[in-house]
Order: sequence, then structure tokens, then C-alpha cells
Amino acid sequence: MPVTLEDIRRAAERISPHAHRTPVLTCESLNRRVGARVYLKCENLQRVGAFKFRGACNAVLSLSDAEAARGVVAHSSGNHAQALALAARLRGIPAHIVMPESAPAVKKAAVAGYGARITFCAPTLEAREAAQERVVAATGAVVVHPYNDERVIAGQGTAALELLQEIPDLDAIIASIGGGGLVSGTAVAATELSPGIRVVGAEPEGADDAYRSLAAGRIIPSHNPRTIADGLLTSLGDRTFPIIQQRVDGIVTVSEEAIIAAMRFIWERAKLIIEPSAAVPVAALWERKVDLAGRRVGVILSGGNVDLDRLPWQG
Amino acid sequence: MPVTLEDIRRAAERISPHAHRTPVLTCESLNRRVGARVYLKCENLQRVGAFKFRGACNAVLSLSDAEAARGVVAHSSGNHAQALALAARLRGIPAHIVMPESAPAVKKAAVAGYGARITFCAPTLEAREAAQERVVAATGAVVVHPYNDERVIAGQGTAALELLQEIPDLDAIIASIGGGGLVSGTAVAATELSPGIRVVGAEPEGADDAYRSLAAGRIIPSHNPRTIADGLLTSLGDRTFPIIQQRVDGIVTVSEEAIIAAMRFIWERAKLIIEPSAAVPVAALWERKVDLAGRRVGVILSGGNVDLDRLPWQG
Repeated sequence: MPVTLEDIRRAAERISPHAHRTPVLTCESLNRRVGARVYLKCENLQRVGAFKFRGACNAVLSLSDAEAARGVVAHSSGNHAQALALAARLRGIPAHIVMPESAPAVKKAAVAGYGARITFCAPTLEAREAAQERVVAATGAVVVHPYNDERVIAGQGTAALELLQEIPDLDAIIASIGGGGLVSGTAVAATELSPGIRVVGAEPEGADDAYRSLAAGRIIPSHNPRTIADGLLTSLGDRTFPIIQQRVDGIVTVSEEAIIAAMRFIWERAKLIIEPSAAVPVAALWERKVDLAGRRVGVILSGGNVDLDRLPWQG
Repeated sequence: MPVTLEDIRRAAERISPHAHRTPVLTCESLNRRVGARVYLKCENLQRVGAFKFRGACNAVLSLSDAEAARGVVAHSSGNHAQALALAARLRGIPAHIVMPESAPAVKKAAVAGYGARITFCAPTLEAREAAQERVVAATGAVVVHPYNDERVIAGQGTAALELLQEIPDLDAIIASIGGGGLVSGTAVAATELSPGIRVVGAEPEGADDAYRSLAAGRIIPSHNPRTIADGLLTSLGDRTFPIIQQRVDGIVTVSEEAIIAAMRFIWERAKLIIEPSAAVPVAALWERKVDLAGRRVGVILSGGNVDLDRLPWQG
């Protein structure tokens, strides 16, 4: 079943008691720097510090009581892990998170802090999937994929829904692309609410599988991606790719230098902590990779989870 | 003429085309850490990165056309300098800023970037005041003091006005105290709008002149203050002190350790860049210096101007 605007509206209603309605902020110096009027949808200010809470929360709240009682499971060492852990805690059900032993201690602690049960595994996709299957076999837990899931896509679309409720006359929205959950949910919301709006995906040059997939007309898996934007390493899924093909105007790629420069600019001038992945759509404007001069552009700042002891401009 | 709620309402109207209505944010992990329900009024997201824009803008827009044509002047190397420079540019009038030669290059550049004319002087209060007097003599510019000015106090009070419009049933508001402009404007707005509310001032232990002034019943000048909160080094003024005496419930002092810990917590968990001075009221909750357990507490995050190359937790 393809994701519809109605799914997104229902998701918004479902998550509204738990998710923040994040602010939309503007920054004159950013506008001047990129030559457009930019509206920053601040998902870095969302719970767990990322838009991922929207999708995970919608998925968890969509479960029947019988499904929910068995708990949920995902393999992730990123923002989805924390998002699913918190969503499960809010519903009072178990969350099982499969993480590689090599994950940073701070991420393990964050997931454990939300009350999830962590299963450690070797740091390969195969080991993670096998460990997840063992959890499912043992507990009957429902798998909540970080993006290749209609409930998750609908949840992620609620950020654009809120943005367009607040600023209805946008000419374009730019969102980052990892697995495509955010951009596909954004594209459904935006193109349904605002026909004629441009939805643009932004991706690091060093992890340009979505760009190449769109050009090739088939999913080209991410292979040895190298970028500071560590939230965008994953490949597209068969639920997100068709939406991107149908509704996204184009995908642009940005340099590592622009990601770091845009990230620092947002910290310095907009006073917002954003993670490198969240700087990627800003970098697309920064490098003028998309012609939006003088236009009203929504940018989804996807998250703000960074290690404050290791900042990219500090070598 | 004492500042009234009506002055603050007029200031809000006057500055509304130019100033951001900053968001009020909440952070569950902060609430848990301090044991209260905290509402963060994000003046770090204000233009020029600080509440100072409110007061400077109100002062500049309050001038008659004849006064305005002569320009404005202040001696400041901090947020007031940038705030006054931007406010003057928005009205299309000259701003003269007196700064010590020793001010950081980034601050000089910021003020110059807003189009102000900078007069350099020796780094003493006497030299700054003498330089300001020379500017006034030469140009007829109107002095806009950073806090000891009713127009400025009324402007600063608009932050609390907005906060209470959005969250009317607060039990208390905590604001930092340097010269007292923010806390006195806050106190007028809060005690008039919400009789029974507690207004608490927060100050670094190493710059506790307001605490001692309130205890002594007279202004005790700041003498060799030592704190990382470099926005709070100044002494109270004869326009701010009486308001503080009349309307502020108490002043609490906080340690340098708590200021840094609270600042880092807001960066990490609330994803907001705040400067050390803005962490001072958070530190008051952090150290439980004021008994607000379980209460609804507004905290004014005063600003977000920091040097990203030198963070306090990086030694």
C-alpha cells in the first residue's frame, strides 16, 4: 500500500501527544549567504534529537495491542535505535535493539537509558540481521525497519506536514537522503499539499547511491560510502525508492567541505546544534547545487546528535 | 519614569516587525535532571544571537526623527554593540560603537558587518566613556546605554511578555543578572501579568555584585569579577536596581562548574548553542539553589554568541 497524505495526517494525530511540534526558524545571515529565503524545520529539536522519533513513534502506536505486547525490534546504532527505544517505553512495551559491539559507548548508553534491551553482534550487516532474526524467533517482537516501512515513512512525513501548515507557500523543500524515509515521507506530504512544489533530495558525494539509483532507474546499493554525514550511509529500500522516483524532482550531491562549512555556519549563526547529516541540505544551497535564487525554501534539519568533544572543524 | 507593563507592550509592538518571536522549548531530560518543568525562552535564537536586540531596537525606534538623524552611540564590545548596530541599520541611521582596541577580532568584525562606525580606545572604563563623550560632542549622537535606560529595560521585558503569553501559568521565571536590564524588564512584565509569580535573578559566584547589592540595600559596584559568563561582568545601574529591589524575589549565585555543566547539558540535550551567561539561570536549577521542585519555571536563555574554536569543556 503506497503511503498517502491521509496516512501522514493520521500519523500526525497519533504522535502528537508525544512528539514535539518543532519550530520553524529563519536566519537572515543564512538567507544572505545562500540567496534564498530559508525556513529551517528544526528536527534537531525533536525528541531524541532527530526526526526519527516521528516514524518510530508512529510505527509503535500503529501496532495492535496483541502485536505491541510482543515488543519491537530493530538493528541500528543510530538515531532510529534511540527513537524506537523511547517510542516503546512510552507505550510501555519492550524494545530490543541489535547493535554492533563496536558502537560508541555514548550510543549504547543512550539506548540503554531509554530502557531498551540491547543485543550485541559483530559489525556486519549479516550479523545484525541474524541477531535480529534470533530476537524475533525468541520473542515474537515486531520488526520496525528504520525506513523501509510505510508506518515509518508516514511518520517522517509529519515534519513536512507541519512545515507546510506553518509556511504554506514554499517553492521547494530540501531533505537529506540516507535510506530515503525522510525524503519520501516529505515528498508525499509536500506534493499532495502543495502541487507544484519542488522536493529535492540532498546527499553527500561520498555516499551518492540515491543519486546513482535515480539515474539508473533501479536501486544501486551503497558501497563503501565515505562521508562525515554518518546518518546517510544506508541504501534505499523498495518502499522508499518508488516514492522518490515518482515525487522527488531531483537529487543533488554535496562535498564534505560544504557539509562542514554549512554545519559550522548553522551552529554559529542560527545557534542550533545540528549533526553533519542535517547540514547536507544546507550544503546543497551553500554550493548552489540547486537553482533556488530568491525562492522560499524549506530545509529539514534532520538531527542534532553529535559528540561535543570531537567537532569536525577541530581537526 | 518607572517602566510599566504598558511600556513593555508598546515596545513589543514597536519591535515586532524586526525582532524574532523566539520559540519556547522544553527538554524532558532537563526536566528530569533539575526536577522541575522548565520552559526555555530561546533568546539565543534572537537576532544578533541575544535578547539585547530587543532593548536596542526599542530604544532606536523610540527616537524622534530629529534625534534619530543624529545617530546613536554606545560603548560595548559585547552583544549590545551588535544589537545597537543592527537596530540602527534597520532604521537607516548611523551607529557609533566605542570598543577597546583589545576586543576580539570576531567581535569587531561582527559590529563592522552591521555597518557601525567603530571608535577604538584604551581598555578602561574611563577611556571608553571619554571616547563616547567625544563621539557625542562631534555628532550629537544619542547614547543608548546597554541597560541603564528605560527604553532598553522595556525592550528586554518583551521576552518575558512573550513567554507568559505562551505559557501563562508559570510559577517562576529565572533570568541572569549583569547590569540588570534583562531581569528588571522581566520582573516588570512578570509581576504585572502574573501576580504571585516568583522572579529570581541568577548570577555567577565570581560576579556577585547584584547579590551583595540587594543584601546591602545599595548598589555595590562589580570589582574584579571573575567568571566565564562574560556577559555578566557589569554593575547594576540606578534605573535597574530599584526595580530589582521592588520586584525580584531573590538573587542566587552559581559556581563556575555548574555554569559549564549546565551549558554543556543544554548543548547536548536541548541542541541549542548558548553562551556561558545564558547557562547561569540553568545552573541555578542545576545546583538546586532555588526551591522550585515540581514547579513550572521559565528560564530566559539570554544569548548564544560563543567562539566555537574554544569551548569551555575543552580545557
